[in-house]
Amino acid sequence: MTSSPLKIAIAGLGTVGGGTVELLTEQADLLAGRAGRRLEIVAASALERPSGLELEGVQFFTDARVLAREADYDVLVELIGGASGVALDVVRAALERGKSVVTANKAMIAHHGVELARMAEQTGANIGFEASVGGGIPIIKSLREGLSGNHVTKVMGILNGTCNFILSTMQDTGRDFADVLAEAQALGYAEADPTFDIDGIDTAHKLAILASLAFAMPVSIDAVTCEGIRHVSALDIRYAQELGYRIKLLGVANINGEMAVECRVYPAMVPLNFPLAHVEGPFNAIVTEGDFVGRTVLEGRGAGARPTASAVVADLMDLATGRVGPTFGVPVDRLEPRPTAPRGTGRSAWYIRLMVKDEPGVFADIAAALRDEKVSMEQIIQRGRAPNQTVPVVMTVHETDEAAMLRAVARINGLSSVAEPPRLIRIENL
Amino acid sequence: MTSSPLKIAIAGLGTVGGGTVELLTEQADLLAGRAGRRLEIVAASALERPSGLELEGVQFFTDARVLAREADYDVLVELIGGASGVALDVVRAALERGKSVVTANKAMIAHHGVELARMAEQTGANIGFEASVGGGIPIIKSLREGLSGNHVTKVMGILNGTCNFILSTMQDTGRDFADVLAEAQALGYAEADPTFDIDGIDTAHKLAILASLAFAMPVSIDAVTCEGIRHVSALDIRYAQELGYRIKLLGVANINGEMAVECRVYPAMVPLNFPLAHVEGPFNAIVTEGDFVGRTVLEGRGAGARPTASAVVADLMDLATGRVGPTFGVPVDRLEPRPTAPRGTGRSAWYIRLMVKDEPGVFADIAAALRDEKVSMEQIIQRGRAPNQTVPVVMTVHETDEAAMLRAVARINGLSSVAEPPRLIRIENL
Repeated sequence: MTSSPLKIAIAGLGTVGGGTVELLTEQADLLAGRAGRRLEIVAASALERPSGLELEGVQFFTDARVLAREADYDVLVELIGGASGVALDVVRAALERGKSVVTANKAMIAHHGVELARMAEQTGANIGFEASVGGGIPIIKSLREGLSGNHVTKVMGILNGTCNFILSTMQDTGRDFADVLAEAQALGYAEADPTFDIDGIDTAHKLAILASLAFAMPVSIDAVTCEGIRHVSALDIRYAQELGYRIKLLGVANINGEMAVECRVYPAMVPLNFPLAHVEGPFNAIVTEGDFVGRTVLEGRGAGARPTASAVVADLMDLATGRVGPTFGVPVDRLEPRPTAPRGTGRSAWYIRLMVKDEPGVFADIAAALRDEKVSMEQIIQRGRAPNQTVPVVMTVHETDEAAMLRAVARINGLSSVAEPPRLIRIENL
Repeated sequence: MTSSPLKIAIAGLGTVGGGTVELLTEQADLLAGRAGRRLEIVAASALERPSGLELEGVQFFTDARVLAREADYDVLVELIGGASGVALDVVRAALERGKSVVTANKAMIAHHGVELARMAEQTGANIGFEASVGGGIPIIKSLREGLSGNHVTKVMGILNGTCNFILSTMQDTGRDFADVLAEAQALGYAEADPTFDIDGIDTAHKLAILASLAFAMPVSIDAVTCEGIRHVSALDIRYAQELGYRIKLLGVANINGEMAVECRVYPAMVPLNFPLAHVEGPFNAIVTEGDFVGRTVLEGRGAGARPTASAVVADLMDLATGRVGPTFGVPVDRLEPRPTAPRGTGRSAWYIRLMVKDEPGVFADIAAALRDEKVSMEQIIQRGRAPNQTVPVVMTVHETDEAAMLRAVARINGLSSVAEPPRLIRIENL
């Protein structure tokens, strides 16, 4: 063990920060044995000095910006969070000094990744962000290095554990969204303000990062369209089950025939033989399609102190052993901007749930609307009779242009017998 | 693009060699863009010059040993196969010259990995063997780098596509082993001599490699016990289905309470919610348990020209960009030999199928044998009656010591009403 230790400064000692301190302390000898040098926490910052963390001999700061500018470290671990503000300030300060950065901050990478990668290139620093997507799953390394021989054509995944927990629980218990969300909040699985998770924004950040690595394009959150899970009802979950599907919040990025990129977050019905159908609760999983490797699936815990710390430390180990390279796999100037596919140009199969008045002629009107837009019906479920009351009618349609589907739904929504706006959920097949 | 190209010599132009040439040729610009330098095939060898491969400007050898000793290259790609013989000779010759090696040869790494890693350390060369396990799945990189912050306690997987294809087909069609094997041979999915695959030897090689990386111990095939799939019958597959299991050939390595290593290959019943239950046909998957990351699962195509080429090229890209390190994650001298757990010391739940004469008192004798060895029965299936004929009786038992289980089975086998040796299959629960 002749090499000098890797000096680590940790900004942020919350859940992930605490887990990272724990890992670096508990496994210090294991890491030193593998890296050929010690990984030493030399400085840390938090608004208050946390009790219960071993920080003996560690220089402590209450101002992360001061830590970043003044402490004597080789790599700054940013675990504060937030797209900008303090997190961005400390990362910029570290990179300006030529110090490398490891971060779990998907929002910051999604919004400022290109600028930060450029700074790192200019000062000779490196940026690791394995922990920003998929918790402990080594998906960043796999995309950037493990599949580097492939043109990746598609990357999709279950990227938010909170949404997956809510949807899994709705499925298992038959309870409704608001009810399960409240429970998830009480259990600490969902934030008091759950917007980032349940409206798909967190998934969008992660998808933007995956798309950048997969397609070697500048990371950009603007390209991602985003639909969350607020509108998924217990009724839709029941119908999904009856039809042989599960509902999952997916992030999906692919390159279409015109080499434009589609990046979308939406709840989708996936068939039971789909590789993501059985990913439950807090687990995340990512499917990648490469032209040589074919399909790969990586699954693991998507959040939590210990899995996320595992990813943070993997990046630190790469830095400690010199396994480094450009932030997004290639230098920023070789990232190729790609056009975003216009909305409504994608194709998909769909599930449609209508609430209609049970009166003569309703089906004929609905069927005519679909026929006029050349949307081909696959199956229809309507159960029981309730003359002149409102009943659910559920249909699935074969793969069709999104624009045609939306036009057909607008027609259907205009029918006097249709009592509320149709509920539309994509069906994802492989 | 100022850096000099990486000069590649390919020994062996069979299926995987052909796929590798194809990838390096078709994606040359993609690879150069990502690596910052070109990856150039400068030399190749095969017993006969293959038609249909673009090898213009490539120095061709019919003797791989001469290629290894004399050609001017930076890295030798060994795709000949076989634990020793020519493959081992050319790898040794390359390493002696200080040239790096990339190989898909699990048998060679399992048998000679330590010696080769030591040679590489002495001459400053590197060895990449991502393609040796799991085809295109980046499992070697994930274990060595992505999970480097973890004490790995268990690694298990479906590692042989031929066996998985045979078992999947038996499951789907109800046909018997010999019949499906013959079809697999006709289709080219199984070798004319299928021993390596169906007796679990190929899986054992791969498991030995995974265990070495997971537990930082010298790779050794001697530690692996091995049971193949020849004895899995259509009847057992049917019962598995009825009991809510699927039968998969697994390689399982774990560290027990005494820090001894158990490495075993065996067909096992896995419940439908088990992460490997839905891995079908030619797909492979590997489950890893780490103390911080928890459970991760990596799935993908386990064989074939293009997926395997994807893994070979990932190693070449790492060499081209200097992302290199010790062969097994740590220098050979820091690999720690671990004791092998004695046979019969493991614990497992079991499926037992008996063929018994349908006569009074049979159940009492069987139940007594289990009771006397303190084996606790979970369920029993016996259907219909056929007085004085032979009928199947199927039982599952709760987790029990292997030694006790084997003693109970020996007692049962000694009963006069038991017509053939009991069939025992492990049940793997998470």
